[in-house]
Amino acid sequence: MSEDLKVVALGGGHGLYASLSALRRVTSELTAVVTVADDGGSSGRLRRELGVLPPGDLRMALAALCGDDEWGRTWSEVAQHRFRSEGELHGHAVGNLLIVALWERLGDTVAGLDWVGRLLGAHGRVLPMSSVPLDIAAEVELDGQVSTVYGQVACALTPGRVRAISLLPEDPPACPQAVEAVMEADWVIFGPGSWFTSVLPHLKVPELADALHRTRARRLVALNLAPQPGETDGFSPQKHLEVLRAHAPSLEIDVVLADTGVAEDGEELEKAAAELGGRLVLASVADEDGSPRHDAQRLASVLDEIFREKR
Amino acid sequence: MSEDLKVVALGGGHGLYASLSALRRVTSELTAVVTVADDGGSSGRLRRELGVLPPGDLRMALAALCGDDEWGRTWSEVAQHRFRSEGELHGHAVGNLLIVALWERLGDTVAGLDWVGRLLGAHGRVLPMSSVPLDIAAEVELDGQVSTVYGQVACALTPGRVRAISLLPEDPPACPQAVEAVMEADWVIFGPGSWFTSVLPHLKVPELADALHRTRARRLVALNLAPQPGETDGFSPQKHLEVLRAHAPSLEIDVVLADTGVAEDGEELEKAAAELGGRLVLASVADEDGSPRHDAQRLASVLDEIFREKR
Repeated sequence: MSEDLKVVALGGGHGLYASLSALRRVTSELTAVVTVADDGGSSGRLRRELGVLPPGDLRMALAALCGDDEWGRTWSEVAQHRFRSEGELHGHAVGNLLIVALWERLGDTVAGLDWVGRLLGAHGRVLPMSSVPLDIAAEVELDGQVSTVYGQVACALTPGRVRAISLLPEDPPACPQAVEAVMEADWVIFGPGSWFTSVLPHLKVPELADALHRTRARRLVALNLAPQPGETDGFSPQKHLEVLRAHAPSLEIDVVLADTGVAEDGEELEKAAAELGGRLVLASVADEDGSPRHDAQRLASVLDEIFREKR
Repeated sequence: MSEDLKVVALGGGHGLYASLSALRRVTSELTAVVTVADDGGSSGRLRRELGVLPPGDLRMALAALCGDDEWGRTWSEVAQHRFRSEGELHGHAVGNLLIVALWERLGDTVAGLDWVGRLLGAHGRVLPMSSVPLDIAAEVELDGQVSTVYGQVACALTPGRVRAISLLPEDPPACPQAVEAVMEADWVIFGPGSWFTSVLPHLKVPELADALHRTRARRLVALNLAPQPGETDGFSPQKHLEVLRAHAPSLEIDVVLADTGVAEDGEELEKAAAELGGRLVLASVADEDGSPRHDAQRLASVLDEIFREKR
């Protein structure tokens, strides 16, 4: 275990849940920096009703880091619990409500998340990438026409092909503690996750993007196991890297990690990695059952080897 | 401090909050047995939307018992926090949502409350008086006409005079742990609180009423500092005792505690206490500022003296 290494994981949603589930086995110095552009579901309703950051991706990251004992598991289950009814609470995740309540009481986003982290016995810290709620604007191509689609839900569901994203507001303030974590990190991990709506947005928050370029940390990209219908339909692994490069042309990547089953054309992918300045590591990191999910233990082992320069 | 004494406090709402705030200073073996007939506010909405026990009075009792450290105080504040908005969450108390989520996850009312108690570092246990949601039916007199008013809110707001209450369903199951706590108690405390809707309902849950009659615990009635508009408008302290007697004719009371400022006619009140089989203790237990609230420290001192037979 690479215990003392400081690792920052960037992302949101299920992809970040997967990387955190692996990284918590590898290091005790773990920080998640999470997108805050969700406008759907419980999070979307909360940001519209109460004017707060969308808490859902933050909650899921905290749950991924929860303690292994009965206390941590129980409170994590409660945080992930969703009300089901015919009424006004239907679909709300309890952890979202708890996070928002702490924000309202403490008036401090990071302190509120730290309190929920303590409740769950979280193995690491969870921070928002920006201190204000954001919206994603996606440049989308459909039948040769290019248009702009607004909002994370619309972007994820567009029948068109997403070409690039930007954020609204265009120059959002970064969360200072997130910038600090990136600057002090040994490794920064991009992905896996929804490429346009969870992985790339961090590069569009100016102070955070600046830190991601300037940090002396090594940078690793963990590729997805499958294209995502809507967002990255038909995208090859190489295409994912090209898009990353288009959004941050001068960002150097040290390692690109891909599952052996995904990289049909290892040579092409190796070239694409090299164009980012990095090397390709192919390893078996997918769930044994064949579903496009990362296996936490396999991903942890490979990341640990990479961090310890054994791979 | 009468540390080892097992004390059970019966009630609901602000009255129970007051008795618990005092009793937690007196004993470490404290159990609250709480009414579950609320049909108003956040609790009313939750029982209608999700079919659960109304959690509000249980939440407030847990908050009264919260730990003195930063952890207990913070989570208690979060539990008591109410959302304010123009939307669907407006008015919901966060602790109510948390309690209901634990009930839904664990499928066990008492276990869920114990988990919230642990979260708040509660100095004591909080139990519902019944394991099913109840409704209050009040016999009300207005302009010489007697009618029945249904629901706690309607009962508290009726312009008529409440004469008696009953419960729907008529034969609700008691919470077994509450019955056990009463049977094992050294002291059982009735009130203060909304007389018809928080203090008397316990006597209408058959198994609980039976335990309250059979227990070897001594029984103390803590009278209110003022009549409650609507429910007990114009009621003298004696009248409160008469109503108690009418609802449980064979219940023997050991001590009736009243504030010196309330008992204008000490002799009448002494007689009313004697008719219940008890003695009257007059003491200064009201808040110094003259408001009709109990002062926790004063009430604690007097109760401690009574428990230690110094008064």
